[in-house]
Amino acid sequence: MSRVEIIAVGKEILRGKTLDTNSNWIAQRISALGGKVARITVVDDLIPEIVKELKASLNNRSKVIITTGGIGPTFDDRTLEAVARATRRRLILKQEALNLITQRYRELKQRGFVDSEELTPSRKKMALLPRGSTILPNSVGTAPGIKLSSKGTTIFCLPGVPAEMKAIFEESLVRELQNTIGKQFFQERKVSVDLGDESRLAGVVDQVMRQVSGVYIKSFPSHFGKEVQLPLGITASGNTQKEVEDLLRKAIERLKEELERIGHSLKEFPEE
Amino acid sequence: MSRVEIIAVGKEILRGKTLDTNSNWIAQRISALGGKVARITVVDDLIPEIVKELKASLNNRSKVIITTGGIGPTFDDRTLEAVARATRRRLILKQEALNLITQRYRELKQRGFVDSEELTPSRKKMALLPRGSTILPNSVGTAPGIKLSSKGTTIFCLPGVPAEMKAIFEESLVRELQNTIGKQFFQERKVSVDLGDESRLAGVVDQVMRQVSGVYIKSFPSHFGKEVQLPLGITASGNTQKEVEDLLRKAIERLKEELERIGHSLKEFPEE
Repeated sequence: MSRVEIIAVGKEILRGKTLDTNSNWIAQRISALGGKVARITVVDDLIPEIVKELKASLNNRSKVIITTGGIGPTFDDRTLEAVARATRRRLILKQEALNLITQRYRELKQRGFVDSEELTPSRKKMALLPRGSTILPNSVGTAPGIKLSSKGTTIFCLPGVPAEMKAIFEESLVRELQNTIGKQFFQERKVSVDLGDESRLAGVVDQVMRQVSGVYIKSFPSHFGKEVQLPLGITASGNTQKEVEDLLRKAIERLKEELERIGHSLKEFPEE
Repeated sequence: MSRVEIIAVGKEILRGKTLDTNSNWIAQRISALGGKVARITVVDDLIPEIVKELKASLNNRSKVIITTGGIGPTFDDRTLEAVARATRRRLILKQEALNLITQRYRELKQRGFVDSEELTPSRKKMALLPRGSTILPNSVGTAPGIKLSSKGTTIFCLPGVPAEMKAIFEESLVRELQNTIGKQFFQERKVSVDLGDESRLAGVVDQVMRQVSGVYIKSFPSHFGKEVQLPLGITASGNTQKEVEDLLRKAIERLKEELERIGHSLKEFPEE
């Protein structure tokens, strides 16, 4: 199975101020895609420290390295510079990234979230990417993620803000990872539940994911208020079609049982 | 400031089944003692993987390495063997550890938690320690922790079960760490609060610890039910006596404010 390593960058995790939930979320997601997280490292936002861990991960012949944190506009966002050093590339201003960032700040200005849409040096910095990077658009925040290949390893750099990290992961990484680390068989099933209260649903979903190892359950945000049907996507991967179907069946059964226990129910859709 | 590294051992964290709250707790605790966590690593329970991270931490000239997990009785508990290899020591049966384990299983048998007090090979394994280890008694579980010095680095191996890890940390490590990584000034203040519901108190305490960086607030379990005075211990460290006093003052003020907001209050004791 392909080796995946996660590097979380951030002083706030090392000081104990922030609990690193990102690495746990990514680990769940990678497992459900059929990959294997072999190592998680948390390092300070200092270039030599980040470079050291990146080099160690490259030496471990990881198929994929995912970094979180340190790609924003402030002075202590140094992950991209560290990636450039570890892979011996120059940082270059990427016009495509600059366009995305320009557009994002224009929107934020219009919505009154920032005072000015001016591309200050710190904002411009987010478009300084290691040569050869592919941009992963950030639909939630300002800093785009990047993808970079180096000697058989694919490096993905994602933001540290959980909502931004998850958005880029779902929108760009899932497809990429299915090709690089995924098992042969992969399937997604959609169901819907009559529990519109996402905070209550989260507990049920979390429990089932922990019980049925290798499945991932995603809820699609609903805008119709409470007491409606909420759609869920259940994904699993495996070495045989049967393995995948068994996992999906088991997850759906456990979900049904848990929902019934609290007076709710689950509806299955015909398979696509 | 002295470098501390944490190595969490366990497949369940890498699979995303377990959120690593141990490292976060230790990081908070180390910060409050005046130390600096420079790196957290999560590795699989495979000897070569653990050895590699231990060697990296030793090469980083860490003053202290704290490992969690992998010191129990099962076949995949391999941390002590990895520590022995990384520090080039032999594993030897430590009579003192064997006595503790024997005594513990006798108690567990009397209380009906285990069927037999027999020292099976897997139970005996917990007394196989790298030569030169000092035992850190485990008042909550069966596997004792260990302390080992190697070329200027002190390695502490703790269990992965949070309650056991915390018990050994509080009972043995705090004193040890104050000597090795602590800042010059260290102080503890006791207060009491009229909020006996520890689950509600936990939220308040957690918030204040995140706001006042460098303090640690410990609650002492109370056996008097709800609506009683619950004692809290607030610890801080710093380079000057004033720094420590300011931190303690700030934490107590924030605690008071937060408690008053939910209709409770805090009582200070005269300083010792």
